[in-house]
Amino acid sequence: MSSVLEIIPLGGIGEFGMNCMAVRYGDEMLILDAGMGFPEESAYGVDVCIPDFSFLEEYRDNITAIVLTHGHEDHLGALPYLLKKFNVPVYCSHFTAGLAESKLEEHDLTGDTLLHRVEPRDIVDIGVFTVEFIRVSHSLVDCFSLAIKTPVGTIIHTGDYKVDETPVIGEPIDLRSFRRYGQEGVLALLSDSTNATVPGRTPSERAVIPAFEEIFSESRGRIIVAAFASSIHRKVCVLGRSMQKNVEVADRLGYLDIPDGLLVSLNQAKEMSDHELVLLVTGSQGESRAALSQMATQVYKGITIEEGDTVVLSARIIPGNERLISRMIGHIYKRGANIIEEKRRLIHVSGHASQEDIRIMTEAVRPKFLVPIHGEYRMLFRHKEFVKNHLGFAEENIILIENGDVLELDGERATVVNKRDIGRTFIDDSGFDEIDGETVRQRKQMAYEGIITLVVTIDAETGEMEAEPEIVARGVRGFDCSNGLMKEAQRIVAASIAGASRDTLRDETLLKEHVRVELKRFIQKLVGSKPVILPVVVRV
Amino acid sequence: MSSVLEIIPLGGIGEFGMNCMAVRYGDEMLILDAGMGFPEESAYGVDVCIPDFSFLEEYRDNITAIVLTHGHEDHLGALPYLLKKFNVPVYCSHFTAGLAESKLEEHDLTGDTLLHRVEPRDIVDIGVFTVEFIRVSHSLVDCFSLAIKTPVGTIIHTGDYKVDETPVIGEPIDLRSFRRYGQEGVLALLSDSTNATVPGRTPSERAVIPAFEEIFSESRGRIIVAAFASSIHRKVCVLGRSMQKNVEVADRLGYLDIPDGLLVSLNQAKEMSDHELVLLVTGSQGESRAALSQMATQVYKGITIEEGDTVVLSARIIPGNERLISRMIGHIYKRGANIIEEKRRLIHVSGHASQEDIRIMTEAVRPKFLVPIHGEYRMLFRHKEFVKNHLGFAEENIILIENGDVLELDGERATVVNKRDIGRTFIDDSGFDEIDGETVRQRKQMAYEGIITLVVTIDAETGEMEAEPEIVARGVRGFDCSNGLMKEAQRIVAASIAGASRDTLRDETLLKEHVRVELKRFIQKLVGSKPVILPVVVRV
Repeated sequence: MSSVLEIIPLGGIGEFGMNCMAVRYGDEMLILDAGMGFPEESAYGVDVCIPDFSFLEEYRDNITAIVLTHGHEDHLGALPYLLKKFNVPVYCSHFTAGLAESKLEEHDLTGDTLLHRVEPRDIVDIGVFTVEFIRVSHSLVDCFSLAIKTPVGTIIHTGDYKVDETPVIGEPIDLRSFRRYGQEGVLALLSDSTNATVPGRTPSERAVIPAFEEIFSESRGRIIVAAFASSIHRKVCVLGRSMQKNVEVADRLGYLDIPDGLLVSLNQAKEMSDHELVLLVTGSQGESRAALSQMATQVYKGITIEEGDTVVLSARIIPGNERLISRMIGHIYKRGANIIEEKRRLIHVSGHASQEDIRIMTEAVRPKFLVPIHGEYRMLFRHKEFVKNHLGFAEENIILIENGDVLELDGERATVVNKRDIGRTFIDDSGFDEIDGETVRQRKQMAYEGIITLVVTIDAETGEMEAEPEIVARGVRGFDCSNGLMKEAQRIVAASIAGASRDTLRDETLLKEHVRVELKRFIQKLVGSKPVILPVVVRV
Repeated sequence: MSSVLEIIPLGGIGEFGMNCMAVRYGDEMLILDAGMGFPEESAYGVDVCIPDFSFLEEYRDNITAIVLTHGHEDHLGALPYLLKKFNVPVYCSHFTAGLAESKLEEHDLTGDTLLHRVEPRDIVDIGVFTVEFIRVSHSLVDCFSLAIKTPVGTIIHTGDYKVDETPVIGEPIDLRSFRRYGQEGVLALLSDSTNATVPGRTPSERAVIPAFEEIFSESRGRIIVAAFASSIHRKVCVLGRSMQKNVEVADRLGYLDIPDGLLVSLNQAKEMSDHELVLLVTGSQGESRAALSQMATQVYKGITIEEGDTVVLSARIIPGNERLISRMIGHIYKRGANIIEEKRRLIHVSGHASQEDIRIMTEAVRPKFLVPIHGEYRMLFRHKEFVKNHLGFAEENIILIENGDVLELDGERATVVNKRDIGRTFIDDSGFDEIDGETVRQRKQMAYEGIITLVVTIDAETGEMEAEPEIVARGVRGFDCSNGLMKEAQRIVAASIAGASRDTLRDETLLKEHVRVELKRFIQKLVGSKPVILPVVVRV
């Protein structure tokens, strides 16, 4: 057995979301995080994607545990799918476990899963690896970085973090532990790059309080907050499935100290005066099925946005959602409500390390190698540029990797020795069903120029045509029953069958290809488009 | 004839792009701008969209002219399609005419179109309307606002503008003429809202020069500029169809003073040293077929981005393009090139009025009514909010309209009296062909869950089944030949035909619906999805 450590990202490098990484030494492998992603393929019936775990099959007997840094969907969402394939123990914080449990319930996995709840500074031996859970601040409670002692040295995986010394819930980031590891010597720091393009420090979670206090004192009507709210002196009604779930878990586990009677039900809320009420809702990204969009465009569970309401969008815009959000804001304005957007007041802060946070982390850990993770290439490269230019880090010690790269560390060198082809698996969220890549490819093809089904009916014995060719088109531009093209196409196909050789007529594959090519030429010439053409041969 | 003026936006209100507006008095109608839009339906083979001009059919004999404010695609792009339906004279600036001409050539319309070239301050009588062309600054040369005298009063349509007193090409905005109209009295100001959410003044075009001078003095390798460049001391090679067209028109009409020998061909460029060369390219929005993306991911006409190159993205990010641009930047970094993005240096300024520009315009014109145009509702509402709160404009005199609204002005009141249903027409850019809405609807439907064609073959006389039902699926999750479901589905359909009544078997419509519903139920129950099902009945 060679004495090297392998780090293999399955997702989250070169993209936002779907964070997942394998760490392997000899015949032992840990999986760090199991996140889902939000693909651009939503037009093709795809809601989310997860890493293609089939690459892990060859290590089936080696996987010893899954370790989760925190409970956001892009770190936790793929857990049920991963556990269905590899039922190994999971290590995570209490709050992460709370969120994980409700996911496992949805997938009927509760009884079969071993969830280990760990505390900050807990140290767990998992075979050859020793993992310490280090408390970090982020936009969620109970988040960890992972310090993993391996036979070739210690690696630190930051998870998502920022350096917040005054968080609203829980204790500040445990910089002391990072410094301790720095003093002992760290081989590699795998470090969050999400905000590596942003100069300065990321503000503390506490920074939003003044703006919210202002908004609460100014507003006479209802206040509707999309995302997390903090100190409030109104009754609060929580709307939207995921918001209700998170508040419930946080309350049950004691992370939120909710005074008796503060939360009200939807029915109670409807009876109350506007100035007594805050609605805490999902949908800050303009998602059409979430509470806020529904309230803005129609009626959501009997509630609609009205004149006098104040809507607070306390969330960053996730790239790609700009149009949806802008349209939703338009609808809210149309209803006569007031909107507080992020740019106008400090009502949301990022959970990710800006450049000066990255400086603090890197200087605390002082790793031999730095490996930027979490983000598109743009962020990874800017992360590299920053530590090179501003922290004097040697360029050859900053390792840029991609999903599927096998990064080998032997204590001296860090080298990409191999590249695995790791794809994505699409998921239809409604039924948790996988959609294979070929199905999505077919959907894309049809979406682009439509589809034509061509049915030819021939005598099984003689090969003679027994009925007019039938042509059915869907989504094909300029080709329908109205303009005579259909009749002409039928004639062309019939003629091509009449002219086909005996061999062609006998061989189903040859015959299909024969008529497909004829029809394709015709359509392309007369309509100028290239729809998918599906030939069907019926033998009677 | 009632003495009222009607203003009817056909596009550009509540959306970015597709700017177009009808202005009607009695039996005379002007069309102001004819822009194209860039719809989200690109997955469905749609490149651009234009207003649905069929609404104008009933005014066919009334349309007297098309007046263009400037030559950007979102004001000019629909002109050929509009002219094909209504061949009326066009009034515009020399540069706009230059761009229009090359569009008309592509559509074979040159000989049939009457293009009137006008100068700033020209006053043109078009029937009952008198139009003065007022010079404004924007991110393009030769742009106009329109002052239109009508029997009920003067209306001013700003077009796209900013208040730039030191433009790089041409003269500053003609505020004097706006003030003159303000003194005479203006009934309504239709005013650009694109940047109405942005505080302060929009910087002058000149503001980018220092940053470019810095970049040019620092860079030793090639410089690649995506968008317009200004003062440069290298040889310039222009790449990308639309960039070449625009530079050619600007040069020919004298808007660019290009020294002899400055421009070099692609072949000359390939022979030159890197430090002698600037490439001026298309593709600042990450468009996959444009020059920059091609150079970043593969080879574009023998040129590829290399280590040592400096890429300058001198353009704003159009909302919706964030992911594409970010991915392209990643590819450029991967090639080892340096990137100068807008946020890091002032290499691009907006062409649209910020709030303090809006203040200057509104205070110069002092209209009775203000009508925010050009932008999503969010921008229109913020425009309203700004002039109400910061200019003391009476709320009832700020008129928010939507596409299709008929805004009636009688000199005293401004009232939306009607709402027309004006849709969009999709265009397949490759062939300039229209794609009707139903075709796009069908494509969306198939893209979402796939399609199944079901062929049943029956005896024309007896109604008995003459061959096994054929089932062909494309893009349907979990339904293929491999898992036995196909056989089972065939069996179900065969049984449903065997059990059908004589009436059903005789009536093609009834029979199709009969088998479609059976198969639909089966698929939904066993696979949990709802693909489009297309039944075909073959009678032999």
